[in-house]
Amino acid sequence: MIKFEVLKKHSHSSARLGVLTTPRGKINTPCFMPVGTQATVKALTPENLESIGAQIILGNTYHLYLRPGHELIQELGGLHSFMNWRHPILTDSGGYQVFSLNKLTKVTEEGVKFKSHIDGSSHFISPEKAIEIQKALGADIIMAFDEPTPYPSDLSTTKKSLQLTTRWAKRCKDTFQPGNQSLFGIVQGGMHSSLRKESAEQITALDFSGYAIGGLSVGEEKNLMNEMTELTTSLLPTNKPRYLMGVGTPENLLTCSSMGVDMFDCVMPTRNARNGYLFVNGGKINIKNSQYQNDPEPVDSNCCCYTCKNYSRAYLRHLIMAGEILAMYLLTLHNSTFYQTWMKRIRQAIEDDIPFSFSWKETAE
Amino acid sequence: MIKFEVLKKHSHSSARLGVLTTPRGKINTPCFMPVGTQATVKALTPENLESIGAQIILGNTYHLYLRPGHELIQELGGLHSFMNWRHPILTDSGGYQVFSLNKLTKVTEEGVKFKSHIDGSSHFISPEKAIEIQKALGADIIMAFDEPTPYPSDLSTTKKSLQLTTRWAKRCKDTFQPGNQSLFGIVQGGMHSSLRKESAEQITALDFSGYAIGGLSVGEEKNLMNEMTELTTSLLPTNKPRYLMGVGTPENLLTCSSMGVDMFDCVMPTRNARNGYLFVNGGKINIKNSQYQNDPEPVDSNCCCYTCKNYSRAYLRHLIMAGEILAMYLLTLHNSTFYQTWMKRIRQAIEDDIPFSFSWKETAE
Repeated sequence: MIKFEVLKKHSHSSARLGVLTTPRGKINTPCFMPVGTQATVKALTPENLESIGAQIILGNTYHLYLRPGHELIQELGGLHSFMNWRHPILTDSGGYQVFSLNKLTKVTEEGVKFKSHIDGSSHFISPEKAIEIQKALGADIIMAFDEPTPYPSDLSTTKKSLQLTTRWAKRCKDTFQPGNQSLFGIVQGGMHSSLRKESAEQITALDFSGYAIGGLSVGEEKNLMNEMTELTTSLLPTNKPRYLMGVGTPENLLTCSSMGVDMFDCVMPTRNARNGYLFVNGGKINIKNSQYQNDPEPVDSNCCCYTCKNYSRAYLRHLIMAGEILAMYLLTLHNSTFYQTWMKRIRQAIEDDIPFSFSWKETAE
Repeated sequence: MIKFEVLKKHSHSSARLGVLTTPRGKINTPCFMPVGTQATVKALTPENLESIGAQIILGNTYHLYLRPGHELIQELGGLHSFMNWRHPILTDSGGYQVFSLNKLTKVTEEGVKFKSHIDGSSHFISPEKAIEIQKALGADIIMAFDEPTPYPSDLSTTKKSLQLTTRWAKRCKDTFQPGNQSLFGIVQGGMHSSLRKESAEQITALDFSGYAIGGLSVGEEKNLMNEMTELTTSLLPTNKPRYLMGVGTPENLLTCSSMGVDMFDCVMPTRNARNGYLFVNGGKINIKNSQYQNDPEPVDSNCCCYTCKNYSRAYLRHLIMAGEILAMYLLTLHNSTFYQTWMKRIRQAIEDDIPFSFSWKETAE
């Protein structure tokens, strides 16, 4: 079981400094969880993740259920042992991927029928099944099975959807056996304030160990996302961790931390790295750009990561242009370091109770 | 300049234990050089290579000339600095790749015209140009530009080819300015004993710092390769290092070490790893095989590499089946460790002057 403690409140925003204690270790919040979709954070070893200060990673139930299968992972000692990561893991419920990776899903009160994106085989996941899979995987924090509402959706569709999510959340809660695991509920409600309120009331009434804000960062404008995050966060209990799912840019992390969000996850740092987009102070660069062809400077001279300490932009550009595997490692390591360092700066500012004096903007190149 | 010293002769074979001293460090021989084609040994960092005991790596002149270009690498401080490898490097001359990666090459006395395999652009490399490129790259040991004889080739074709190689070798020698670099000559002669003898006589007469045996492992039977290697090695001076290019399996390394070869290079351990073929004592396994699906054992329980110390066959199989980048790293690290350990065992047996009591066979699965 987890324990969450708010250590300090920021007087310049609604941000809070916290510590989330799990059976496998402590997590300083606000935190960013690197995404380990298929039992690996792409291109990084567990030691790399430790070295950059990651205290918790995320695993994807949908992917692991399909391949290699949750029973296989259980048989081999659970996800931690399987992937050699001894620190905390959070698994999502699979709901998001079931819908985003499948064009044809059939949703009933009972659950969701879908076809595997790998081999087309038919599958069915119910709230009970999602909990069973996550129990087999053995993550420290697991998520209720929800129906993410597509964007845009009208009031009536969104209302029906959030109510289904509530009934599924209750079924998850009922079937869940705590033990070493903790279960988080997910608030939906689309982009409708009244429905965010309705969902938050229903989900918090079920008394979970933590609460996630789902259904955001799905194509809506930044301001709308911020509005929904701020509203939803204000509706959640202050003594439980708040997790904004699938978000986002460094700017998002700063803005939403200042609204009182404690946990984030996103494929952005790792996926961007593999495409040559590197996060630096103030923005993002595309290392494939010809301007870096003979650039002897590191990606970011202020960055303390292995990549920036040892390699030039010219070398990194060469590696990615030549399709070399080492590029994937070096660039992922840099971006992942940037994200962990970014969260550390946010936590430090809360600790010191000074305004957030740094910013980051998505730059067009 | 290099210095080569034979420390001990094996009384059970023609093997010898040696030490090759270069301006960037010592290399214990017989040695295996991991191949760093495009300024990176695929999937490994320099620290990984150090940790497995690699003392020298190979770079490919042809690839680096085309991308990112030798002038660019020179501008950035040379290949060592560019790729962050402070230990010895050997570059090949580009001859082999010019022919093997191009269907249309035009060979004249002057040199070779060819088209880039990357963008189809036209290029010309002469012996003088090959030395110029290798000077810019700055490897510790560089190779003369040769014409590898295709297999099979009749006596007359092979004779003409080896004589061209000799004239080119002389031009390389003439244009070469020693400084910190050392130049090796390459013996050709195909599968014809009389021509191997002719080539060895002509090349050794030019007095290089070391001698390579080229034109083998090109599709001929194992026994024929061994016969040619044994013959050629016997024709080379005993006080200079002997390098068998592009070879081979662990069995080849053992057999040819016992004939007095001191240096080897091959893409086999790294390329096999990326395809799931792993070297273990006594043979090779294909980790993709379904028999490893739920196998909790390491690849090789006697192996001391990071992969074998921390991961199950089941996990490695999952990673490669899922197309994960981490698989490339973990499998390459294992195979590269196997090769370095294999050479260490060979050196130890010579040192102890005991017969080679171990063997390895290519196994069909």
